Amino acid sequence: MLKLAAVFNTYSTTMSAPAETSPAPHHRGQGQSIDLLGKIAQLQGHWQPRVVAEMNDYQFKVVKIAGEFLWHQHSDTDETFIVLGGELRIDLRDASGSIRALHLQAGQMAVIPQGVEHKPFAQAEVKLLLIEPRGVANTGDGEAGARTVANDLWV
Amino acid sequence: MLKLAAVFNTYSTTMSAPAETSPAPHHRGQGQSIDLLGKIAQLQGHWQPRVVAEMNDYQFKVVKIAGEFLWHQHSDTDETFIVLGGELRIDLRDASGSIRALHLQAGQMAVIPQGVEHKPFAQAEVKLLLIEPRGVANTGDGEAGARTVANDLWV
Repeated sequence: MLKLAAVFNTYSTTMSAPAETSPAPHHRGQGQSIDLLGKIAQLQGHWQPRVVAEMNDYQFKVVKIAGEFLWHQHSDTDETFIVLGGELRIDLRDASGSIRALHLQAGQMAVIPQGVEHKPFAQAEVKLLLIEPRGVANTGDGEAGARTVANDLWV
Repeated sequence: MLKLAAVFNTYSTTMSAPAETSPAPHHRGQGQSIDLLGKIAQLQGHWQPRVVAEMNDYQFKVVKIAGEFLWHQHSDTDETFIVLGGELRIDLRDASGSIRALHLQAGQMAVIPQGVEHKPFAQAEVKLLLIEPRGVANTGDGEAGARTVANDLWV
């Protein structure tokens, strides 16, 4: 919780809320049809996930990405990527340092296991649906950094 | 657990495993690219969900449906529908008996809140990705019936 609070404080004191951001609705995005590409069309920047719905304590987030992210891991949860558009590469690095790449196209998904280092990469823009527990930091374990974004922003 | 055991026993004593069913893999479908429509192409019947991956204690299931299901609810969990092909209608019935319909096309999703009665309907075949906790019965709360299927079958 301290880590999340730190991220939130960084956000609230040094950044202005992006135009497409809305507060969490009381219905949590439930009981309605959600057009995923329509939601993504509202996003302005890359690497800025926005929540569209919650299922129990999990969140569905849309994001568009381009270029390379950083190596990170989530030590306490699996994480799911569903590709809605474009071609995604996810590099996975095992404990020995060996790297292998997953290649995902639209209509394909991958679950990254808890504790496995991974790095998403998009040669051209990729549109994604992410599924993970509420409160997971986009940059994984450890201190927030330049690529860390505020959590629980909705669109 | 008793309810789940009952479903399993019904299955194991009265039905043979469909040809497209495989046992749960040790990797739980993780760390690999999963082509969702490719998985659905392996399914034989309607209303026969098959697990393709797990994320923590949740399962991703593909299913193809046609026609009308039955009214049911899940008193202890939300449930997510993502439409991969076709047009899905989900009727929702509130405590007063009022019914409203959600209409979902490919690329659209809906989270049905815990405890809300719902009934999926497909005028023509619909291809779906379902996300829910491991062990949820397809027909919801109460006794298993003619539409109840075995759980934790993979494809």
